[in-house]
Amino acid sequence: MRIVPIGYVRSTATAGMDCRELESVVEVLPEFEEGLYTIERERELVILYVFDRSEGRALKVHPRGDPSTPLRGVFATRSPDRPNRIGMTTVELIRREGRLLHVKGLDAMDGSPVIDIKPLIRPDQRPISQK
Amino acid sequence: MRIVPIGYVRSTATAGMDCRELESVVEVLPEFEEGLYTIERERELVILYVFDRSEGRALKVHPRGDPSTPLRGVFATRSPDRPNRIGMTTVELIRREGRLLHVKGLDAMDGSPVIDIKPLIRPDQRPISQK
Repeated sequence: MRIVPIGYVRSTATAGMDCRELESVVEVLPEFEEGLYTIERERELVILYVFDRSEGRALKVHPRGDPSTPLRGVFATRSPDRPNRIGMTTVELIRREGRLLHVKGLDAMDGSPVIDIKPLIRPDQRPISQK
Repeated sequence: MRIVPIGYVRSTATAGMDCRELESVVEVLPEFEEGLYTIERERELVILYVFDRSEGRALKVHPRGDPSTPLRGVFATRSPDRPNRIGMTTVELIRREGRLLHVKGLDAMDGSPVIDIKPLIRPDQRPISQK
């Protein structure tokens, strides 16, 4: 299956940084801007992006890359060295400026391709099956 | 970018069903089973899968396919008719049985390709930047 970038991350995040308070920008490509219509009503979004600098594809990893922590299966962690290398972070939407989403809490590096944006759904508002 | 299935959904979900209490199975492919190591310690998982029966790629949609609801940008909704057609659902892990994960609350149809499994991270435990 092929996926395409719908935008890119603009960020000053560096490796190992605590990004909970960091503000960064999700720049959506012009051809997808219409998909942002009314998104400014949302307070929290889930950003799916690609760990494009990850080279590994390990199935067992040390959480947070710390060799002193016991190995776990990659699907029990958020390690970037995973099959399909998709990262997922819940962020606060600060404001929308055209096709720029100013967000807080995104732990993705500058230039990371964004592949989807979704509204956060809390456990008590889970959706019904959609297809 | 190319993505590959790491497993498939086994479910009795039908279109429009309320799946919050539904039990289904995520069957991980043998070559990725090692990635499940210790996952049974997690109580909640996020399943990323492909809306493989979605044909549309709309940028504005009626939420829940209901034409009486006002149009919204697709990124402000969970519509399957989206660029990259990736679905995301938080589920409860009931038990692991080898490479079968018995889960509750998955709103994906039978046979949907699964592309990632992640532990749920609550807002107060957001991770630091990983690359």
